[in-house]
Order: sequence, then structure tokens, then C-alpha cells
Amino acid sequence: MKKLINTADAALAESLDGFAAAHADLVALGDDRKFVRRVVLKPGKVALLSGGGSGHEPLHAGFVGQGMLDAACPGQVFTSPTPDQMMAAAEAVDGGAGVLFIVKNYEGDVMNFDMAREMDSGDRAIATVLVDDDVAVEASTYSTGRRGVAGTLVVEKIVGAAAERGDDLAGCRAMGESVNRATRSMGVALTSCTVPAAGKPTFQLGEDEIEIGVGIHGEPGRRRAKMTDANTLARDMVAAILDDLQVSGQGPEEVLLLVNGFGATPLMELYVMYHAARAELQARGVRVTRSLVGNYVTSLDMAGCSLTVTALDREMTALWDAPVHTPALRWGC
Amino acid sequence: MKKLINTADAALAESLDGFAAAHADLVALGDDRKFVRRVVLKPGKVALLSGGGSGHEPLHAGFVGQGMLDAACPGQVFTSPTPDQMMAAAEAVDGGAGVLFIVKNYEGDVMNFDMAREMDSGDRAIATVLVDDDVAVEASTYSTGRRGVAGTLVVEKIVGAAAERGDDLAGCRAMGESVNRATRSMGVALTSCTVPAAGKPTFQLGEDEIEIGVGIHGEPGRRRAKMTDANTLARDMVAAILDDLQVSGQGPEEVLLLVNGFGATPLMELYVMYHAARAELQARGVRVTRSLVGNYVTSLDMAGCSLTVTALDREMTALWDAPVHTPALRWGC
Repeated sequence: MKKLINTADAALAESLDGFAAAHADLVALGDDRKFVRRVVLKPGKVALLSGGGSGHEPLHAGFVGQGMLDAACPGQVFTSPTPDQMMAAAEAVDGGAGVLFIVKNYEGDVMNFDMAREMDSGDRAIATVLVDDDVAVEASTYSTGRRGVAGTLVVEKIVGAAAERGDDLAGCRAMGESVNRATRSMGVALTSCTVPAAGKPTFQLGEDEIEIGVGIHGEPGRRRAKMTDANTLARDMVAAILDDLQVSGQGPEEVLLLVNGFGATPLMELYVMYHAARAELQARGVRVTRSLVGNYVTSLDMAGCSLTVTALDREMTALWDAPVHTPALRWGC
Repeated sequence: MKKLINTADAALAESLDGFAAAHADLVALGDDRKFVRRVVLKPGKVALLSGGGSGHEPLHAGFVGQGMLDAACPGQVFTSPTPDQMMAAAEAVDGGAGVLFIVKNYEGDVMNFDMAREMDSGDRAIATVLVDDDVAVEASTYSTGRRGVAGTLVVEKIVGAAAERGDDLAGCRAMGESVNRATRSMGVALTSCTVPAAGKPTFQLGEDEIEIGVGIHGEPGRRRAKMTDANTLARDMVAAILDDLQVSGQGPEEVLLLVNGFGATPLMELYVMYHAARAELQARGVRVTRSLVGNYVTSLDMAGCSLTVTALDREMTALWDAPVHTPALRWGC
């Protein structure tokens, strides 16, 4: 294993310190690095809090800032943050309008966010949105039910804008649930990732093998397959997504298309996949009206990508377009 | 070789088509994909034109937009664009105030941009800024003199802002030369990259080997070395950069620190390197006042990173901070 770290034990802390120093205009670290928070909070706004295992950067800490998250709790690599991290973060960012937890559907995350909610001693109103956008499998290594993957970014962005315009806690939760219902993802891995503390690849793929439907921790997906071309991959992934979303065959629909790299795939390839997926959607009568292409919800150094499709209505489109100013996503401000 | 492409021959065209579709609000493709240009030009402004071999994405096309480049000419992977691409781009974006070519110092690029300048039949005023920020080697596989690497981003951003505020052609060129003189970079590779048309890694590194001073095409650098920790790498790279820049030992200086991933290195590791490099600079009395961390000037799927340091004066700092709105870099607007 060759990684740009000092020790596996120190990597997360040093990375967070670097991140906070590089983006000191936007974010600050909580005590003991329990959370990353916005430097400037907006009083009276519903506070959005997310978190999860590290190794998916820029998710979640890279999405802390105006128009998106108020705080993010980083766990160790591929390990849930602890309830005391979430409680400390909620305490720090609650501006009196309540706190919305945005949680990817993994057992550890769900349990710890639930525990934080139960243990919170304040008069704080806390609600939860669970994200489970991955159509690949119905249950997996770390999840009961579907996994939450790159669609989490879409939920965080759109609900972030809703909170920013003044929606209350119930409204933000409802919007989060609407976006989750409108969002589906599927991924493909070309290589494994290597967890620093493990020191060796999580799984093995042959020279011409890929994992269709892989999870963002390298969990198995639907099947091993022979490597094939981008058009074939995009066609199969779009079919799986649209079959599940049931927007196909119902006349033109407008969608957001997110092509997300897992960390080790060059941008050139991601745009080839975007080109292929967009063509496949259009051939099925689905119009891509909003797009995002890049490494946003990663799996350390895994090569591969996921496609995420969100069926947009007018309100969601406007909230997607609303200003966002975070380390990893910014526009309109 | 596993890549998300259809064929090696079609990859660049499909990627450019995808890129232009995903960012249609900002950029458009020229005929025959000769160049990527800003959708909205600013009349009377000096036009900034860059380009080079593909495989370094988001450089250069990802930096086309308000406050940065007016056009970028993409060559095939690691291959210079042709003079007719540059002439067509200059024709398309010249707003009457002249065209500045920003050229990385590689023999093919230098020759073709020079040829485009000579062949241009218009009354166009054309000037050139050559970027050669890489301190690793004095000459290399593809360059006479030093190579132009990630510092090119800094030149394009700062000169882009100078052009946007109305500086004339001579002023933009002078600013570009100032930024280049103030900028030094050095890289380290943990793995090779694989050029799609070649189908196999450009070079071989052992399980515990790294290439210190690697170029952005996988060219050899200063030496092969044993893999070591982030702090040691950062210390050696910062030393090489500062020794060359001669800002060390002259009292506090303010610098921009760019930690640039080569494409396959996770963000977590880049922030560890940022943390280490920043500490090393501070220990030498150099203050980091501006920062950028991410995959900006890549080498396909190479793992590793480069450090770039630019000695900032007040004017350069203001130009760095000025609004930029491109697919890959945006702030302030």
C-alpha cells in the first residue's frame, strides 16, 4: 500500500486539520475534531447535520457551508461517527429552529444517529431523513434495505436550499423525503479501494473484471462481469435506475444527472460516461436539465463511477439552482 | 487496461461532447471540436487562449469561463493541439484587444503555438506567456528547459482576472510572466498513468517505490526513491521549491499553496499533504494566505500529487480572489 499519509492512525486527524486550515473562511473544527461546522450560522434557520464514515470525501465535510450543511460528523474510515459527535454538533449549530439529521442508510449510521436523538438532553427538535438511493441491492453487507450513496449529495443540496429560504423542520424533512423518493443511483467498480488501516485491497477484481452495483465501501453489488465499454455500462445502469424510478415510458420527464467518480477515475472518463448516460436517457424520452460530473461521493482510491438520476419538479430545480458556497460545491454566490 | 471509454480513438471526442453538454451555460465547442470557448465573450477584453495535450483534466478546458480562459485547444492525450486549432480559437475569441497564448513549456506545444502565431493571417495582436514552474529537472523527455505543470492554473487564474479588469495585451503578458517567476512546483508519483491508446502503464514502479519530481506525463523526475511518509515528502518538496524560489530566509513572505492531485489520489490524502506542506512552510517563516487543494492538473489515472507555491504580492492576491466562473473553478460570482 502506498498512500500519502504519515500513519493510518493519524491520517483522518491530519486530513481534517488540513481541510479546516485550507477552508478557514467557510468551516471550523469542533473540539476534538468531533465535527466540521459552518463558520457563520444563520440564526433561526433549521440546522442541517450529516456525517458518516470518512473515505468518501468531499462528502460530507466538503458540503458544509452556505446553502448546504451546517455541520458534518466524520467517523474513522468507513466507520460511523459516534452519538456524542452528533450531539456535540447539534448543540453547536442549533439556531432554535431544530436540527435535521441527513443519514445514509447504513446500520451503524442509523443506530448512532438514532441514539444521538434519544440521548439529546436539550429541548431541541430533531428530525431525520434517511437516504437509500442505491438500486443495486435490497440489502447488503452494512445495510438493511437499500444503501445511501451519491444521491445523498442531491438531498443535502436541495434540502440545504430549502432550509436557507426559511422552511421549517417538518418542511425540510418532507423535502428531503421527496428528493430521496425521486432519486436513484447505481455504481460500477473497476478496482477495489484500500483502507489505510487494512493495508490491502478490500476485494480482488481480475484484469478484465468489474463489479456491477458496487457499494461505496467496496461491498459486493449485483454481479461480477467482464469489463465492457462505456455505452454498454451506461445503458445497463440507466435501465436499472429508470426501471426502479418508473419515469420511463411516461412521456418526457426532466432529471438531474450526476456522474460521480469513486476517487481514482479521471475526469475524462467521467465525461465519457456522462455523454453515454445522457444519450441513453434522451433515447428513453428523459431530458437532462441539470448536470453534475466529478468526484463527490468517493470510496478512497476505488476506480469506477456511479450514476444518479433525480426526477426534478420545478421547486426542486429552483432549490438545486439556489446559491451554494461550500469547499466542494459552489455556485450562485 | 480497464477504462470507462468506448474506444481509445473515440474517448476524447465523446468526453468533450459530454463536457460541453454538462456545462452548456458556460462553454461551447468549436467546429470539429478544435477548441472549447466561453459562451459569452466580453467585448474589448484581451482574449486568453491556452491548450495542450488532453489527459490533464480539468486543465485546460475546465478553466474556460468568466475570469479565466476565453478558449482552450485540446490535443489528443498527451499530444499537442495543432496550429489550426489555435488559429481557429484565436479567430473565435479575439475581441479586438489581442490574444494572449498561455503555453506550458513542452516542445510540441511551444512549436505549435509559435507556428499558429506566425501563420495567423489577421491583423491580430498575439503575445505568449510560457509557463515553466517545475523545479524537478532542467530539461526532460518533452521539454527544453523546465516543464510547465500545475503552476499553469495559477497563471491562468491571475492573468484571467487581469484581462477581465481591462489590462491590455502587454500588461496581461507582463502579469503572466510575473506570476510564472513567482511560482514553483514539484510532484511525486506513487503509480504510473496508463494512456488509453497505449493500453499499458507508461512506466513501472515497485510496490514500495515512488518517482520524485515526476512530470505530468509520467516523465522521469529527479530519482526513484523508497516510499516514505507524507511529512518527509512534503519537507523535501517544499525545500526544493523554496530553495529555488529563494523566498526562504528573507523574513515572512505570503504564498499561495496549491496541493494538486494527479487523478487517482483521494482528497483525504491531498489534505494530509496540504497539512504537512503548510506546516513546513510556516516552520520556514512562510505564511500560507491562499490555498487550493484538489485534482486540477492531472495525469490521467496517476496516483500522487504536486505542490505549487506562488509568492503573492498584494495585486496578485486581489487578482486571485477576483470572481471566477468556470466548470472547474468558481468563486466570487
